[in-house]
Amino acid sequence: MNRKILLQEQDIPRQWYNIAADLPTPLLPPLTPDGKPVTPDMLAPVFPMNIIEQEASTQRWIDIPEEILDILYRWRPSPLRRAVYLERYLQTPAKIYYKDESVSPPGSHKPNTAVPQAWYNKQYGIKKLTTETGAGQWGSALAFACQLVGLECKVYMVRISFDQKPFRKLMMQVWGGNCVASPSNETNAGRKILAEHPDTPGSLGIAISEAIEAAVTDPSGKTRYSLGSVLNHVLLHQSIIGLEAKAQLKSVGEKLPDVVVGCAGGGSNFAGIAMPFTLDKINGAKIDIIPIEPTACPKMTRGKFAYDYGDIACMTPLMAMHTLGHAFVPAPIHAGGLRYHGMAPLVCQCIVEGLHTPQSIDQMECYEAAMTWAKTEGFICAPETSHAIAGVIRQAKQAKEEGKEKVILFSYSGHGLMDLMGYDAYLSGKLKPYYLPEEEIIKSEECLAGHPQAQERKSGKW
Amino acid sequence: MNRKILLQEQDIPRQWYNIAADLPTPLLPPLTPDGKPVTPDMLAPVFPMNIIEQEASTQRWIDIPEEILDILYRWRPSPLRRAVYLERYLQTPAKIYYKDESVSPPGSHKPNTAVPQAWYNKQYGIKKLTTETGAGQWGSALAFACQLVGLECKVYMVRISFDQKPFRKLMMQVWGGNCVASPSNETNAGRKILAEHPDTPGSLGIAISEAIEAAVTDPSGKTRYSLGSVLNHVLLHQSIIGLEAKAQLKSVGEKLPDVVVGCAGGGSNFAGIAMPFTLDKINGAKIDIIPIEPTACPKMTRGKFAYDYGDIACMTPLMAMHTLGHAFVPAPIHAGGLRYHGMAPLVCQCIVEGLHTPQSIDQMECYEAAMTWAKTEGFICAPETSHAIAGVIRQAKQAKEEGKEKVILFSYSGHGLMDLMGYDAYLSGKLKPYYLPEEEIIKSEECLAGHPQAQERKSGKW
Repeated sequence: MNRKILLQEQDIPRQWYNIAADLPTPLLPPLTPDGKPVTPDMLAPVFPMNIIEQEASTQRWIDIPEEILDILYRWRPSPLRRAVYLERYLQTPAKIYYKDESVSPPGSHKPNTAVPQAWYNKQYGIKKLTTETGAGQWGSALAFACQLVGLECKVYMVRISFDQKPFRKLMMQVWGGNCVASPSNETNAGRKILAEHPDTPGSLGIAISEAIEAAVTDPSGKTRYSLGSVLNHVLLHQSIIGLEAKAQLKSVGEKLPDVVVGCAGGGSNFAGIAMPFTLDKINGAKIDIIPIEPTACPKMTRGKFAYDYGDIACMTPLMAMHTLGHAFVPAPIHAGGLRYHGMAPLVCQCIVEGLHTPQSIDQMECYEAAMTWAKTEGFICAPETSHAIAGVIRQAKQAKEEGKEKVILFSYSGHGLMDLMGYDAYLSGKLKPYYLPEEEIIKSEECLAGHPQAQERKSGKW
Repeated sequence: MNRKILLQEQDIPRQWYNIAADLPTPLLPPLTPDGKPVTPDMLAPVFPMNIIEQEASTQRWIDIPEEILDILYRWRPSPLRRAVYLERYLQTPAKIYYKDESVSPPGSHKPNTAVPQAWYNKQYGIKKLTTETGAGQWGSALAFACQLVGLECKVYMVRISFDQKPFRKLMMQVWGGNCVASPSNETNAGRKILAEHPDTPGSLGIAISEAIEAAVTDPSGKTRYSLGSVLNHVLLHQSIIGLEAKAQLKSVGEKLPDVVVGCAGGGSNFAGIAMPFTLDKINGAKIDIIPIEPTACPKMTRGKFAYDYGDIACMTPLMAMHTLGHAFVPAPIHAGGLRYHGMAPLVCQCIVEGLHTPQSIDQMECYEAAMTWAKTEGFICAPETSHAIAGVIRQAKQAKEEGKEKVILFSYSGHGLMDLMGYDAYLSGKLKPYYLPEEEIIKSEECLAGHPQAQERKSGKW
């Protein structure tokens, strides 16, 4: 029995895997509001050119610089674990493996991309990164990365989270990050909102606007912006999760998994575990690859595949993705990292191709799964991660019914020690199921119809 | 270079090491208030007989039951890591290794003894354990252990911590623990205090009284009490830390370390890393073995070696230990786990014998060390653990001055993600150095002089 499958430092993957090289149909390009493809120079004020090159790359394997590996070695390779205690509890013939991304210093998979992004910016001569954060997972990961690489880091944190979740802010401060409540008085976007709504709780949309403005208006030209999910280069960096997992499964004599599961908000964690196995599926392997989203934010299962903006202020390019409309505001479920209206275009293209088959699960089932996890495996998972566990429990039960010894792999994207208020709500009976009402879906279609480029696509092939 | 030294599951130690077998002078026995040795039957209402046997045992090696290992495998063997990033920063020739006990589900070394204690109680037919907790580290570890073993768990948590630190309480609840604020209305001790002082913030002394009363007065006879440090059986269970570390050092070709460091509150974490190497020192090896205490609670460096009570209410037997007097109330430093007036008798006997050489370090130096750790190794340590890191940094600097390639080993007893308020106090400049004033030491001597058995011992040999 192998409960913990370890990979030695010298066996860490030395290249990231880029699914863009292997998609049956090429990825649809990002567009400007007037429908023209976005060119690299348009992105240059926001991202450094070496990151923009990765964003557009269709090269299959991209070398990971040694200096980046030297930083990642603090927690990578991460353990692959066998969830034997959950298996026993479920009396399932399935073998459940999970890639433990909670072991990073910030406690999630996010630093897998924060570190390379900080490093490439530093290489390009950038001195400072800006970003936004909601619950604080991404902000703390970027502050951590900037500390280790030697960049300044400025985080615009949604005001209500800033006030209610002081611990994430403190993590950023320990790592030298400068975290302010958004809207702030430091940007035009922030000042404008504050003048109109002095008591606003803030929103991710406002925080994005402030972070981008702060980057592009710095007169020194030495500040750029950093995003923690959705974009191609982010998913590229996260592929290390699945590449390590593949090597670890092989080391204990497992062939390919039958099922791969991950929770998906913007798609970076799910893609991290999924894409290296999606390549095998493209090459003929039979694997169910399942991104799990909350029923409160069901863009993959009930949204449209359309060109839409990444943010409510329509500052980003239009991207071809599954979306509930950029104006959609998800219910305040505790899995803050899954509250996003869109999905990474690379994941969406895989869904269109039939390579990924999304499912949505309600938060009550997810917290039940998290409690089962805590009393069997013993660890307290993040609310986002509980969605993956709920999906895995469904699969393990199905394997039991079918009497099949399936191999199930999932990404344990983070621990829940900074998110215990959600458990409190669940344990005290305050949590309720939440299924997005049909009228909200209709509203999202109207939102999309209002934008000439934001039209539904029936397939990825046009 | 080996940054992370892993031990396979099959190489986990199968026996605990009991230093009581090897002490040059036998341990002084616990005494009743009238000076007679405590007999096992006196302890029977409080602890199960199989634990009492371990408490009194002088057997060198004690088998770890397979069923206990099966629980520990969730996080053990824990990694031994090389702090290469700190070494580079300090430009020291020393090699710094640390045993990472923060990887357990509750985030500290505490479950190493919580699990066996719960298991032995279960074996003995006990249905429920009671305990007290201050900041909540021990309470959450025992709730975790009881959940996995299948016992009820009742935790009396000091009221001020209960109100100010809701997250530790939530951890206990996720693991099925029943945590109440102490003083509570559920015990005579609690009701008496509440009647006199309805607004009391509570204290560890009151919480201990409540937990013991709840155990010994349960009419079913199926409830016992559990303690997270100080006692011999607790230190025995923690020896797995040092035993694993020894095997890991050997696996990378290191002989014995030159220096072993651990923070010490009641002594269980320090003894866990130290005792297996103390055996080597008894057998002639040259090793500096250093428990680190805060200058705010300097029992080992400035207290007396005397027979004293373990608690303020004088409910425990008298133990021969270094103490500041059982009535001593330490300043409210953030390292809550180090705020204890006494020290484990096994550690004290080693100090008397010259095997352990304690140091005290002020909290400002400790938080500076914690910040250095966060910006080099990347992880956020517990306030208790920062004392060990500060001690290690002193040693590494000394090795640099001496130009010696020393091997330094320490126990990284826990992460600091649940204790970020201490970092907030440090970063906002609110924290001050604290050295215990001499008049407090004099008071502690008066306290001891008031008890016939609580007399200073000039050596361990009488």
